[in-house]
Amino acid sequence: MSSIVTFLGKGGTGRTTIAISAAKRLASRGRKVLLIGQDSSPAYSLALGMSVTAEPQEIAANLFVVQMNSTMLLEQSWTEAKKLEQQYLRSPILKNVYGQELGILPGMDQALALNAIREYDSSNRYDAIIYDGSGDLNTLRMFGMPDILSWYIRRFRGVFTDSDIVKALSPFVQPVTSAVLNVSWSPDDLTSESTKDASQMLERGKEALADPQRVIAYLVTTAEQIAIAKAQYLWGSAQQIGLTVGGVLLNQDSDSNSLANEFQPLPLTSLPTIEQDNWQPLIDALPSFTPATSIPQPISIEIRENKIKVFLPGFDKKQVKLTQYGPEITIEAGDQRRNIILPPQWTGRSVTGAKFSNKYLELSIG
Amino acid sequence: MSSIVTFLGKGGTGRTTIAISAAKRLASRGRKVLLIGQDSSPAYSLALGMSVTAEPQEIAANLFVVQMNSTMLLEQSWTEAKKLEQQYLRSPILKNVYGQELGILPGMDQALALNAIREYDSSNRYDAIIYDGSGDLNTLRMFGMPDILSWYIRRFRGVFTDSDIVKALSPFVQPVTSAVLNVSWSPDDLTSESTKDASQMLERGKEALADPQRVIAYLVTTAEQIAIAKAQYLWGSAQQIGLTVGGVLLNQDSDSNSLANEFQPLPLTSLPTIEQDNWQPLIDALPSFTPATSIPQPISIEIRENKIKVFLPGFDKKQVKLTQYGPEITIEAGDQRRNIILPPQWTGRSVTGAKFSNKYLELSIG
Repeated sequence: MSSIVTFLGKGGTGRTTIAISAAKRLASRGRKVLLIGQDSSPAYSLALGMSVTAEPQEIAANLFVVQMNSTMLLEQSWTEAKKLEQQYLRSPILKNVYGQELGILPGMDQALALNAIREYDSSNRYDAIIYDGSGDLNTLRMFGMPDILSWYIRRFRGVFTDSDIVKALSPFVQPVTSAVLNVSWSPDDLTSESTKDASQMLERGKEALADPQRVIAYLVTTAEQIAIAKAQYLWGSAQQIGLTVGGVLLNQDSDSNSLANEFQPLPLTSLPTIEQDNWQPLIDALPSFTPATSIPQPISIEIRENKIKVFLPGFDKKQVKLTQYGPEITIEAGDQRRNIILPPQWTGRSVTGAKFSNKYLELSIG
Repeated sequence: MSSIVTFLGKGGTGRTTIAISAAKRLASRGRKVLLIGQDSSPAYSLALGMSVTAEPQEIAANLFVVQMNSTMLLEQSWTEAKKLEQQYLRSPILKNVYGQELGILPGMDQALALNAIREYDSSNRYDAIIYDGSGDLNTLRMFGMPDILSWYIRRFRGVFTDSDIVKALSPFVQPVTSAVLNVSWSPDDLTSESTKDASQMLERGKEALADPQRVIAYLVTTAEQIAIAKAQYLWGSAQQIGLTVGGVLLNQDSDSNSLANEFQPLPLTSLPTIEQDNWQPLIDALPSFTPATSIPQPISIEIRENKIKVFLPGFDKKQVKLTQYGPEITIEAGDQRRNIILPPQWTGRSVTGAKFSNKYLELSIG
């Protein structure tokens, strides 16, 4: 397992420079580091000062770098999918479609990158992974995927199981499965077995994201008003997917005093501009990337007090929408929705009050 | 129908400033313009100097602006999906899932934005739509979606129709459909009817993208080496989805002479830096956004000469991979794949030669 660090902020504020510097810093202190560049263009090699490839390469002591390549990753995933199919289906059909002809649809870049991060993480080859992504909502959609995908699976499985379609289909399930499947399974086994691995993977992804020792984001901004607004928005949006933000990096010699209030209670670090290609002052100025314990957790459920506290900086009361359907609460803020399942102790109860103060949304359960 | 203009380039090179200026320019010349901001954060309102909403608002004569909001668009699409379901299914099941609880998965932003652009386009309310998206590969994945999605549908439909699964299932199709469907259809009608609307929509999307009078992109760069490399890469990548690039905008007073060779044969426009909040010099310096006829088309199929010419700037021969499966050729370059179906005149023939010269990939059909 590695600790995964990523950077959020407006384009052009220096996220890639900071990601490279962070990787160099951690490697120089003896940690084995993998720097992942999402940008598949030759611009990434230019930023790094040496050419990067789609397989991890050691470019300095302890420092590995890899450039994401979705077409290659899709081909690899397709090969895996075909192997799985061959195990279960009497006569495989996917084998007639070749990995080399598959195009990339929206969202595939993020799904493939998350899967690659998961594999690098579980390879135990790296102490730290620096993920240099697009640093915007697309990165958050990626990290939020395990939670949202498992919600869709749970919700739609429930709806379909209760539906007339499934009742109409069920007499046919036995003859059809025996005709097409390699293995003999009852319909119940089938749904549970085939989705068990996937569910476990999603659960592990959710656990990792909820632990700031495993995954943490840092905001990058300059003193420019638009960059600050964007960083604040991404701060709140990160909370919405349960991603802890560990601090703010003020790039380009920005004055940290003038911004201290904008990002309370996060630690602020002012970073020098790179001069004459000398990166060392920037590398030295970076924080340790070990999260302080004082950093607010995205959510805390307090059973005894009958309260849910959600940390939602960067939004005001008007921008937050709350709905409840049965045992689930949906919090909408910043073009994201988060579904929270009430714990079993609260079965049958509902939200009776909501107040927003000092960046926290506090829900009372009646 | 509107003409749709978008901007590609590295973050921080001024794409949003240019998109806003372009919208102002076209509106001031009497065209009805809709400016679409993909960024859902308050930073967009700051950039524009007034607050934007998720519904188009007229902010000046002829100038409308809207900010994409995926949660809202998803809710609207869900309502549409439920209506469709009610038409066809005896007992609808989607009605038990509420639009307000749906989270956003990777790719949904792009799919929803493309659908919104399509609707604004076909509303005939605007002469021009300026789409200010992320300006990177995510924007290209979005515009490339109709082509790639229709490839997946075509390819997988073929594979499934020929498969043993479908043969095993077909005796059950009649009893099941009559149990769950409102309407009486034979299995053949069912597949063709339910996908006809979707296919037509995808075909219209592909047609629009192939016509530079309908959809066109401009590259934005500064004189910085990394920004130039990124713009060149996006130029080539745009060709891979069939999107015509109409020109290069050199921002921040960059010297256009030094860059003339990097973007041959595109017209270059040097833009002044905004000073003291005076946008007028920038607005005046912009090109007309009407594509010159001399601009290379992404692809031309020359039946008589037995040749396919693909315009692929920004790549060299080593970065382009070519494969053929039956009547389809796949061109892989810049983390994108493009599938080209050989025209019926060439049935049974294959690529016998490929050469790369002067930014063109030329394929000979033997």
